[in-house]
Amino acid sequence: MKVKAAIATGQLQPLVVDEVDLDGPREGEVLIEIRSAGLCHTDQMLIDGSRDWPNYPVILGHEGAGIVREVGPGVTRLKPGDAVIPLAMPECGTCPACRSSKSNLCDEYFKPHPRAPFSWKGRPVTSFINLGTFAQFMTVRAFHVAKIRSDAPLDQVCCMGCAGVTGIGAALNTARVEPGSSVAIFGLGGIGLNVIDGARLAGATTIIGIDTNTDKEAPARRAGMTHFLNARDFEGDGVVEAIREITGGGADYGFECVGHPVLAQQAVDCTRIGWGTTVLIGIMPGSMTDTIPMRPRSIQAGRSVMGSYLGNIKSLSQFPDLIDWYVEGRLTQDNLISHRIGLEQINEGFELLASGQARRVVIDF
Amino acid sequence: MKVKAAIATGQLQPLVVDEVDLDGPREGEVLIEIRSAGLCHTDQMLIDGSRDWPNYPVILGHEGAGIVREVGPGVTRLKPGDAVIPLAMPECGTCPACRSSKSNLCDEYFKPHPRAPFSWKGRPVTSFINLGTFAQFMTVRAFHVAKIRSDAPLDQVCCMGCAGVTGIGAALNTARVEPGSSVAIFGLGGIGLNVIDGARLAGATTIIGIDTNTDKEAPARRAGMTHFLNARDFEGDGVVEAIREITGGGADYGFECVGHPVLAQQAVDCTRIGWGTTVLIGIMPGSMTDTIPMRPRSIQAGRSVMGSYLGNIKSLSQFPDLIDWYVEGRLTQDNLISHRIGLEQINEGFELLASGQARRVVIDF
Repeated sequence: MKVKAAIATGQLQPLVVDEVDLDGPREGEVLIEIRSAGLCHTDQMLIDGSRDWPNYPVILGHEGAGIVREVGPGVTRLKPGDAVIPLAMPECGTCPACRSSKSNLCDEYFKPHPRAPFSWKGRPVTSFINLGTFAQFMTVRAFHVAKIRSDAPLDQVCCMGCAGVTGIGAALNTARVEPGSSVAIFGLGGIGLNVIDGARLAGATTIIGIDTNTDKEAPARRAGMTHFLNARDFEGDGVVEAIREITGGGADYGFECVGHPVLAQQAVDCTRIGWGTTVLIGIMPGSMTDTIPMRPRSIQAGRSVMGSYLGNIKSLSQFPDLIDWYVEGRLTQDNLISHRIGLEQINEGFELLASGQARRVVIDF
Repeated sequence: MKVKAAIATGQLQPLVVDEVDLDGPREGEVLIEIRSAGLCHTDQMLIDGSRDWPNYPVILGHEGAGIVREVGPGVTRLKPGDAVIPLAMPECGTCPACRSSKSNLCDEYFKPHPRAPFSWKGRPVTSFINLGTFAQFMTVRAFHVAKIRSDAPLDQVCCMGCAGVTGIGAALNTARVEPGSSVAIFGLGGIGLNVIDGARLAGATTIIGIDTNTDKEAPARRAGMTHFLNARDFEGDGVVEAIREITGGGADYGFECVGHPVLAQQAVDCTRIGWGTTVLIGIMPGSMTDTIPMRPRSIQAGRSVMGSYLGNIKSLSQFPDLIDWYVEGRLTQDNLISHRIGLEQINEGFELLASGQARRVVIDF
């Protein structure tokens, strides 16, 4: 079938919106009509050149919500008409991580989709992290697809599969924030707002947000932030001192949501010695093996530094709970989305995101 | 009173064994006769210049075991004749860390002893981390002193207050090693052997030791090591690949017991993505704010990097359990001690330690 999509042809090139060919679902795959898709900084890193990607052209987009339109042979868990959210992290159900309660990091994540359902001008086009939500329809393996309740508003929950799960999960599943605790969140974009949601749900009573953009203060306060620090007001590690002062010695939990080496160190240093736990969420520029400077003695003072992929939430078995929470009014996702555009405006959308003006930009198909 | 002690007069200077004056116990203090004291790499860093110390001359030594000889006013928990182990970490019982189950890092640790009980040639001499076990007697605040069972052999358990608690606690209290898990330990000195003890007690079934000194293989195997890797047999990150091969994808837990930036990264990388947990135990050369290069993406793949002071074991309320375990035959401390010397041989002892020939050197008074 012919579908409209946004194609990244190379680094530092604007996305091209054009018609592409989409092959229907084969064994274990499903065809999804995308209703809304979110623009994420991780997509942007493949446009602005700050992250390596081996295979251009590529159809970006890994946040979205839609409806199953067709299922391939062997797919029994999903049926046409189901409301779904495709997630970058599969849940095969049988690998060591899927059998463990410790991790969502399914072995299938590391095996690229063996075929490219999209093609353009007669040549196959890859899909970013095996998804590609910047298209009217997508064909994806069923173990990437979470079935959600039918009354969930797709135009609102469409960012839950990445920003939502990453931020909320980092607070609830990775750091395991506790009632009465204090939390410092560096960066109040799509991820940071969701960390606030997760920390508030967990019962944190001091939620400090740090950003350079004062426009982000109001939505963050609506989500539950109790203190705002404008990073521009501090020199050096002054912001670390300010957090120690507010929390009486250091935050119980720190979250780095930007992907900046200096903020990573500050997010560690601002936590309390003895038990401070910091989650590094923001993806640093560069390759998998690039390094940043870190202070080992700061970690060694009884602190922890943790990582998590997509909030360490299992995509099929745990993620749908978050959609329930949204429908029950416990999350603030509509607070998260600041701009809505059509597919044709995708390049302007990424400019809004890059400039820091947008919290989250959503494409409505 | 006059007591014999070893005095560090400055960096890169041999210790001077001489008679010093020791003031008896005042309010909240006790006088201990040291029976045996262990030589630790942390002492050595103040001799070889790899760690800053603001106040020379200083009486080093923070591992030891002895007998209480006198108690100052207000001390009711201890009495003359008690077998004790002085620990660097106090347990005041009232600060936030002491009231929390999460940390042993008592606030009193950061407040130096307000007076110097030792003096030499008429001038006060500081004590390393408020202890100073390289002396026949020491006066120390009671909240640094764990009372242990009277049948514990002091000449064997004298390294438990640092090497023992640090290694065993890192496995049991910090990483929380689980039954059936796999563990990789970089450095099989005093700390590494105790990590093996802790991992074995926790039920780890794959215990991989990495060292450049093959003499350390036999004692480590006696403690429970199941695989030995000679780091000299590998180039680059080959040792990481070898650990991944043995464990089928990565160790559940990694421990860096040397204090080397390259080993710190390897100890992280060799753990399994999704849940690999690494404890940085070895103290890196340099100051509190010096940095080492670390790969954020490696941590972000669902791994954790943790620090702990003295194994995150509370000195007065939890540490004596370890002595019970020793007496019950569950630990291998006598396996740990490779050399015994008199106080006069202390400089030769540190040479044995620096050369990697000794696992642990103990002074018998």
